Amino acid sequence: MKIITLTTDFGLVDSYVAIMKGVILSIAPGVRIVDITHAVPPHNVTAAAYALQRAVPYFPPGTVHVAVVDPGVGSARRPLAIHAADAYFIGPDNGLFSEVLTKVAGGEPKAGEEAPSVICLDQPAYWLPAVSQTFHGRDIFAPAAAHLAAGAPFETLGSPIDDPVVLPPASSIHLDDGSIRGQIVHVDHFGNLISNVPADWLAGQSWSFAIASHTVAGLSPAYAAVARGQALALIGSSGALEIAVRDGSAAERLEVQAGEPIEARSNDG
Amino acid sequence: MKIITLTTDFGLVDSYVAIMKGVILSIAPGVRIVDITHAVPPHNVTAAAYALQRAVPYFPPGTVHVAVVDPGVGSARRPLAIHAADAYFIGPDNGLFSEVLTKVAGGEPKAGEEAPSVICLDQPAYWLPAVSQTFHGRDIFAPAAAHLAAGAPFETLGSPIDDPVVLPPASSIHLDDGSIRGQIVHVDHFGNLISNVPADWLAGQSWSFAIASHTVAGLSPAYAAVARGQALALIGSSGALEIAVRDGSAAERLEVQAGEPIEARSNDG
Amino acid sequence: MKIITLTTDFGLVDSYVAIMKGVILSIAPGVRIVDITHAVPPHNVTAAAYALQRAVPYFPPGTVHVAVVDPGVGSARRPLAIHAADAYFIGPDNGLFSEVLTKVAGGEPKAGEEAPSVICLDQPAYWLPAVSQTFHGRDIFAPAAAHLAAGAPFETLGSPIDDPVVLPPASSIHLDDGSIRGQIVHVDHFGNLISNVPADWLAGQSWSFAIASHTVAGLSPAYAAVARGQALALIGSSGALEIAVRDGSAAERLEVQAGEPIEARSNDG
Repeated sequence: MKIITLTTDFGLVDSYVAIMKGVILSIAPGVRIVDITHAVPPHNVTAAAYALQRAVPYFPPGTVHVAVVDPGVGSARRPLAIHAADAYFIGPDNGLFSEVLTKVAGGEPKAGEEAPSVICLDQPAYWLPAVSQTFHGRDIFAPAAAHLAAGAPFETLGSPIDDPVVLPPASSIHLDDGSIRGQIVHVDHFGNLISNVPADWLAGQSWSFAIASHTVAGLSPAYAAVARGQALALIGSSGALEIAVRDGSAAERLEVQAGEPIEARSNDG
Repeated sequence: MKIITLTTDFGLVDSYVAIMKGVILSIAPGVRIVDITHAVPPHNVTAAAYALQRAVPYFPPGTVHVAVVDPGVGSARRPLAIHAADAYFIGPDNGLFSEVLTKVAGGEPKAGEEAPSVICLDQPAYWLPAVSQTFHGRDIFAPAAAHLAAGAPFETLGSPIDDPVVLPPASSIHLDDGSIRGQIVHVDHFGNLISNVPADWLAGQSWSFAIASHTVAGLSPAYAAVARGQALALIGSSGALEIAVRDGSAAERLEVQAGEPIEARSNDG
Repeated sequence: MKIITLTTDFGLVDSYVAIMKGVILSIAPGVRIVDITHAVPPHNVTAAAYALQRAVPYFPPGTVHVAVVDPGVGSARRPLAIHAADAYFIGPDNGLFSEVLTKVAGGEPKAGEEAPSVICLDQPAYWLPAVSQTFHGRDIFAPAAAHLAAGAPFETLGSPIDDPVVLPPASSIHLDDGSIRGQIVHVDHFGNLISNVPADWLAGQSWSFAIASHTVAGLSPAYAAVARGQALALIGSSGALEIAVRDGSAAERLEVQAGEPIEARSNDG
C-alpha cells in the first residue's frame, strides 16, 4: 500500500484537507494518507519545509510527499514533482523543496546516488478536469500524487525542468576559533528551542551555550537530568543541539523565538 | 474499500472522535475513515453543513458521510439516514442535511435522478447494545454507518420518513437591476471571505464589489495578481465570489465576519 | 488489519506524530493507525490516561494502544508493554497505565481473567537502530508497537517485570450517610463537567447536586430537557454523573475546573 503524506497551511477547521483526501481516494482508492501537519503558519514556506524534512527519513521508500503552502497559486509559479533517491515530492515551485534539491543535487551524493529528477506538472490528463486559480492542492497536486501512487510513471506526469526554485538556507552556522555560532531554527510544541548545530560538531569537547541573555553549562543527557524548571542543553531527536526547560517551556522562560542566535563556546579552548 | 467521513463539533482534545472510530472499526474493520473536520463551532449546525457540503463532491460514489452536531441528542429529535444520488448521510434530524434534501428533492433533479430516500434509524439491531442520552454519535450514528459500509442494505437500517427537518437557507442572494446582493457565508482559515454569489452570475460583465465600508474593483485572476496586503476579489475554489487580501487576512483587514452583506455592482450598466 | 492507537502530548503542529506513523508503517505496512488525541496538556500523565481509558473499550480486541506522555524520557524510567485481557499498551513506566494495571490486577477480575502481563522493552532488536534520549515514542514505542502488530510475540519484545509504576487514583469518592462526595475528573470540549460518580450509585433515589456555589436539582434525561443556558445534571456517555449547561459551557458558567468537588445529596433521606 503506497503512502501519500500531506503538509499544508490549511488548518483543520475548513474542509480543504478533506477535499484533497477525497480527490486522492477517488483516483487511488488503496493508497494510505498520512498527515504531517496542517498547522504550518499561513504562507510560511520555510516552516513547511522544516516540518516535512524532519519527517521524510522515517517513511518507507517510495512515499509520495505532497506539500502545499502556496501563496503564488494561480500565478506563473509552476507545479512541481521531484523524484529523489527514495521518495517523491509534489507541490508548488516556490522553494518548499529546496533541501531535497540541494542535498541530493549539490550536497554530498552517496556513491551511485543520482541527482533528483524534477518535472513541471503540465499534463492536464493528471489534473482534475477543471483547475481553479486558488486551490491547486485539490486540482493538480492531489490528483498528480494519486496517479503516481496508483502506478502512473513519474515521467508521464510532466516535462523535465532544470531550474526549480531553491531558496538560500533559512539559517546560518559558523565555526570560529573554539566557538560555534548557530541559530534556533524551530520552537516546538513544548517550547524546546531546536538549533541548527549538529551533534557531531559538539562531540569530544566540553561546551557552554549562550542564548539571548542566558548561559547554559554543558550538555545534559536527558530532560530529567536537571531540576524542574531549570534550563538545559541536550542533543535533541533531530540530532541537533536543543535548549529546553525541564517540565516547562524554554521559549517562554528564555523569551526566545525561531531565528535567535545561539553560541556554543568550548570550555577546552 | 468503503469510505466513512466524519464531521463533528467534538474537537480533538477529548476521545469522542476516536471512540466513534473504534466503534466503526469494530463493526467494519476494512472501512476507511476520513475526517472532514471536528472543529465545527459547538452546536453550529449551519457551519457543519457548510463544511460537509464543500467536501462531498470530491468523495467517491457510495461514501457514507456521518455528521454529528447534535444539541438535541436524547430528546425527541430523530436519528436519520439519507440515500441521495451517490452518497449516504447519517446524523441527527436537525437540518444538518438540508442542502442534500432540498437540492436533490426540490431543486433541479437531473434526468433520471431520484429524490433522496430518508429513513429514521429506529432499528436497535444496528445500534450499540446500550444507547446513552448524550452520545448518539457513538451509540447510533457510528454503528449505523459501519453496518451500511459493511454491506447492510440501506432500507434495513430504519423506517422511511417523508418529513425530515429542512432549515431555510442560511444566506440569501438577490439580483436587482445591475446589482447582486449576496452575503459572506464562510470565513476560512486564511481569512478569505467566501460569498454565496456564484461565478456564473458574474460572467461576461465588469464589476466592482462593496463590502462593509470597502470597495474592491474588478475580479482578479489569482491572489498574486495584486500587491501584498492589498484586497482583491476573485472566484474561489468553491466557484463563488471571494474577497481576499494577498498574503494576509481579509477578515482582519476588512473587519468582516460570516453573515456580512456583499454587493456586486455592474460597471456595464 | 491490526489497529495501533496513539495518545500523546505532542500537538499537531510539529512532525512528531507523523514521524511515529512513518516508523510504524515502515515496519508494519498493513497496520491501521487511529489517533486518540495529541492534545494532552504537556507532561500531564493523568489527562492522557483519562483520554485513553475512555476510548479503550470501543476498540476491537487485540488493539495496540501506544501512549507517550513522557517527561522522564532518557532517564532511568523503563519503557513498558502490557498485555491485558484483550488489548496491548505500550509507553513509559510512569503511571500512564495505572488503571489498566489496577483494574485487571487488583480490581475485580472476571472469572477466568488473568492479571496483565508486563514487560520492560529491553530488546534492541525491536527498537530503531539508534535510540535518542528525547524521543522514545519514535525510537522504542512506535517500533515495538509495529512489531507487535506485525506478529512478533509479546514475550519476545522484553523481559517480564512485576513492579510497574502505579499512581494513586487521581480522584476520590466517598459515600457518607445519604451523601456522595466525588470530584470533577474531566472538563470536555463543550465545557461539560464529568465527575467520578458512577450512574449506579445514583439509581433509585432522587438527588440534588452541589458544585462550587451552585445547586442543581435532580437528574435530567438529556441536555435538551432544560431551557437554553440552564444548568443540569445528567448521566453522561461515560456512565458517570455530569454537570452541563444546555447549549453552553458549564465550565464557564459555573467557573469550575477539573478537581472541583461535587456532592450528591439524597432527597430521600
